[in-house]
Amino acid sequence: MRPQDVIRKKRDGQSLSRDEIDFFVAGVTSGRIADYQVSALLMAIYLNGMDAAEQQALTEAMLNSGNILDFSDIPKPKADKHSTGGVGDKTSIIIAPLVAACGVGVPMISGRGLGHTGGTLDKLESIPGYRVSLSAAEFKQVLERVGYAMAGQTAELAPADKKMYALRDATATVEAIPLIVASIISKKAAAGLDAMIIDVKVGNGAFMREESRATELAHALVSTGNSCGIKTRALLTDMNQPLGRAVGNSLEVEECIRLLRGEAAEAAQPVLDLSLELSAHMLWLANVDQTTEAAHERLRGVLDSGKALECLQRNIEAQGGDPRVCDDPATFLPLVSETIKVESPRSGFITRVDTTEIGHAIAAIGGGRVRIEDTIDPTVGFTSELKIGDRVKAGETIGVVYCADSAAAQEAARRIQVAYDVGDEPPAEDLQLVKEVINE
Amino acid sequence: MRPQDVIRKKRDGQSLSRDEIDFFVAGVTSGRIADYQVSALLMAIYLNGMDAAEQQALTEAMLNSGNILDFSDIPKPKADKHSTGGVGDKTSIIIAPLVAACGVGVPMISGRGLGHTGGTLDKLESIPGYRVSLSAAEFKQVLERVGYAMAGQTAELAPADKKMYALRDATATVEAIPLIVASIISKKAAAGLDAMIIDVKVGNGAFMREESRATELAHALVSTGNSCGIKTRALLTDMNQPLGRAVGNSLEVEECIRLLRGEAAEAAQPVLDLSLELSAHMLWLANVDQTTEAAHERLRGVLDSGKALECLQRNIEAQGGDPRVCDDPATFLPLVSETIKVESPRSGFITRVDTTEIGHAIAAIGGGRVRIEDTIDPTVGFTSELKIGDRVKAGETIGVVYCADSAAAQEAARRIQVAYDVGDEPPAEDLQLVKEVINE
Repeated sequence: MRPQDVIRKKRDGQSLSRDEIDFFVAGVTSGRIADYQVSALLMAIYLNGMDAAEQQALTEAMLNSGNILDFSDIPKPKADKHSTGGVGDKTSIIIAPLVAACGVGVPMISGRGLGHTGGTLDKLESIPGYRVSLSAAEFKQVLERVGYAMAGQTAELAPADKKMYALRDATATVEAIPLIVASIISKKAAAGLDAMIIDVKVGNGAFMREESRATELAHALVSTGNSCGIKTRALLTDMNQPLGRAVGNSLEVEECIRLLRGEAAEAAQPVLDLSLELSAHMLWLANVDQTTEAAHERLRGVLDSGKALECLQRNIEAQGGDPRVCDDPATFLPLVSETIKVESPRSGFITRVDTTEIGHAIAAIGGGRVRIEDTIDPTVGFTSELKIGDRVKAGETIGVVYCADSAAAQEAARRIQVAYDVGDEPPAEDLQLVKEVINE
Repeated sequence: MRPQDVIRKKRDGQSLSRDEIDFFVAGVTSGRIADYQVSALLMAIYLNGMDAAEQQALTEAMLNSGNILDFSDIPKPKADKHSTGGVGDKTSIIIAPLVAACGVGVPMISGRGLGHTGGTLDKLESIPGYRVSLSAAEFKQVLERVGYAMAGQTAELAPADKKMYALRDATATVEAIPLIVASIISKKAAAGLDAMIIDVKVGNGAFMREESRATELAHALVSTGNSCGIKTRALLTDMNQPLGRAVGNSLEVEECIRLLRGEAAEAAQPVLDLSLELSAHMLWLANVDQTTEAAHERLRGVLDSGKALECLQRNIEAQGGDPRVCDDPATFLPLVSETIKVESPRSGFITRVDTTEIGHAIAAIGGGRVRIEDTIDPTVGFTSELKIGDRVKAGETIGVVYCADSAAAQEAARRIQVAYDVGDEPPAEDLQLVKEVINE
């Protein structure tokens, strides 16, 4: 078999066989197939797509390119959540302790932020001492002891994905649905899951801006996840404004802790609503509850009793972090007191938020990564005090930028102010946080 | 500008600007753009195409990636022929002296054979002593003294093409029309031409097997050539059987010499017919004659008078070859006496020839290159004694394989025998050698 013959076949719109896909993924992993051949195939896949059998074969080949974690001796169901990414999306930090407190193991493999989106690992690292680089043995130990563990992908899990992702990023082939699905599902399957809920974000702050594309992605993820033996469901959720109140690493961790403590601001509420909804589906998928209503009740129980907060605190301690952040986040998280208000230039209603621009504005001043090698400043961030549809007066505070460097803060505030559209009338339609549940 | 943004634009089917194309070609030439980014763009171009303005910009960017030969001080029109390649296609060796003998300068940059097709440079090198690697100064000197010169592409002419071609070969993007056009026209334009005739081969021995694709390619070549200031026309010609009688390097040179000497076998005649037709268009394009009929008369004159043969002989001498090959090719060309006949397995009519298979069979025994690094055995070859439509008896000789290694010869003869279809009825349609003249 020659790489160019496989490329030619996909170029001509034909389906690749399992052998051809295995050959290619093995060549990527070993380095025997040149990067320029891999990238030509990636572009051909981007433009000509893959059918369900190819999708399945690609995902399994990537899964089998590395080790598979084995948690079969932990006598409980294992479930995880994956989000396609957005601005202010911090639900992982809430969902993991909520679901773990309900008796489901959550071996969560998370990512870093890049571009306008944040990453769970970066957020967690704003907790003093918290370690996200765990060996497989440590990861399992924390999972067993606490009920959940959170770490980054290691070189041993789906190594083909790591190489392919770097090439996709450099060749404008990131957005190909078959490649996204294989990347996500192979990593999740390598983490030994029984069930998985996928939060597919849609809107101007999401990776997928169009609902049709997001829906297509959600269906492909659910069907491939199920075919790989992971009971999978997806929710299509809104990303037309930052999720909740906080954007930025320390601020988002603080928001999560306050939500679990029952003392968060009203603007943060959607984060908890969505976290509970995603968690309820996870409990249903993991066969803990027979209906999502029953799961909601169970979740409300561990939230109100403080068991979820306690679980978070035990995880932080187990992963080397300072557990006192759960008691007093304002004191023990790296936050700055320097703030600049973003004021509304006129009176009216907030009609639209350029969510990606807010993400970029915060990333540009250190709250995220413009380039993959950038380091993060955990103190930098933004809190959005108003939502789409809210009435606002000229000069009223839309939100607040947190940043010790006042010139940088001013630049971010200027960009964010422009990102908010204020009109005379409220928007015609209400934004629904959860747009659709996708089961197959 | 970032390479991935240019790739994304072409991926999404948009037109690239001249600046974006210049940026990419400059990056290819300097090596500043990674091969894997180049190959992703090549695949996007393959699948999404290029419009006329992009085609033009790409060709000019590749042309400007290197030196441009300047023959403006040679006071005659400069013209060339290019063929898209086939089996037994040796017209360059006849056309160059024919046209040069009519007062047109022919600065011919030729290529090597690869796969089933032969290359003019390989054929010329079967003349003892003949040198195809000339410096720019030598090339010009031969052109001035003899009227034509023949050499390979140097690293100075269109260097972007050389790098892109290697990547295209490895990534199944060779057949993209915009890439073929830019590759051909940029090299020709770098040779300082006024006029150019393009022989676009179509049929089962051609690069383009389908007439619709070949026609599309011909139109793109003609329009881009004209836009680059080269008066260009294309002929669509048949490649459903070897052109003429000989396939293989020495044998083809011998055939050319015998045709110019007026002593070739009947089966070789189509080579001369096509050479005269292509030459007549070149003289018309170069404004030497006002009609192709008048050009045909002029060509017939230099052929019958021996002036064309004399011109060939002077070129061979000027490029270091032994000029006695023109007087006595059988003695001075490296030919072998070991032959094996290919016999017809049955009586009937020759209905079809798998021309590519003949090319591969001869390449496999040393007459061509299977891999780019293979060396050529100039003595190896095949002569086809019968054409499509000819009546044949069982056991009659279809053709003859020339090869000193009898096991190899037998293997080639076996493959070639299978490549000929013999049926009860002659084929319904006559094959036309020239199918269409394309002017725009």
